[in-house]
Amino acid sequence: MAEQDCIFSKIVKGEIPAQKVYEDEAVLAFLDINPISDGHTLVIPKQKYEKLDECPAEVLGQLASKLGKIAQAVAAATGCDGYNVLCNNGRAAGQLIDYVHFHIIPRNEGDGVFHRWPHFQYPTGKIEEIAAKIRENIK
Amino acid sequence: MAEQDCIFSKIVKGEIPAQKVYEDEAVLAFLDINPISDGHTLVIPKQKYEKLDECPAEVLGQLASKLGKIAQAVAAATGCDGYNVLCNNGRAAGQLIDYVHFHIIPRNEGDGVFHRWPHFQYPTGKIEEIAAKIRENIK
Repeated sequence: MAEQDCIFSKIVKGEIPAQKVYEDEAVLAFLDINPISDGHTLVIPKQKYEKLDECPAEVLGQLASKLGKIAQAVAAATGCDGYNVLCNNGRAAGQLIDYVHFHIIPRNEGDGVFHRWPHFQYPTGKIEEIAAKIRENIK
Repeated sequence: MAEQDCIFSKIVKGEIPAQKVYEDEAVLAFLDINPISDGHTLVIPKQKYEKLDECPAEVLGQLASKLGKIAQAVAAATGCDGYNVLCNNGRAAGQLIDYVHFHIIPRNEGDGVFHRWPHFQYPTGKIEEIAAKIRENIK
């Protein structure tokens, strides 16, 4: 999506309104208008990158250093029992807007929003094999 | 849970084994032994904090500045179509180990792992009200 058409770029530039909850020189947080729960917040870097692995280390570091502060405020304001911080990358992972964003999703006991994903056990030897492959790919 | 009983503290200290994929002075990444998908990785700060909002800004910043690098390697190694980065805080949000950790979960088209969570629309006036409450709670 071209930057001029991107809804988050427009929010950063003030071209479309958003319920902002935090803003500094590098980071913007605002409420999701299609929330999963009350207080569902999105946190983005003001500079656009499509995916997390495309973000420079300093941009991610700057953003994440504010995540705790924002999550604390979301939790205090909503009185939730817990919260998920989620960043989806790629359509296969549920990313809908090609602008890296972290969801803060307030959660309450028994809300049924998040069902435990099915997990499994690796067959013998598989975990070592995958770990080695990941290590080889660290740049 | 006391720190001496915490499985992640033991992994950091090398008291129990783990398939490590990245390590530096502040951050450790290793494979989840009960994965949701092949290459499911956990990223933790070496210093223990229970929840994201308890992490000092610099600890979170340091950790997140490595998330892109690690996610890129996980994606390259597994050949996945996308990935979720997820940090659960509190039992209500699915946190099982009281040591802050980010999941990197490789995803593939149609894997059925992640179902879209049900979202809704705020009734009139509600979004402004919640945003104001969150802003008041930013410290």
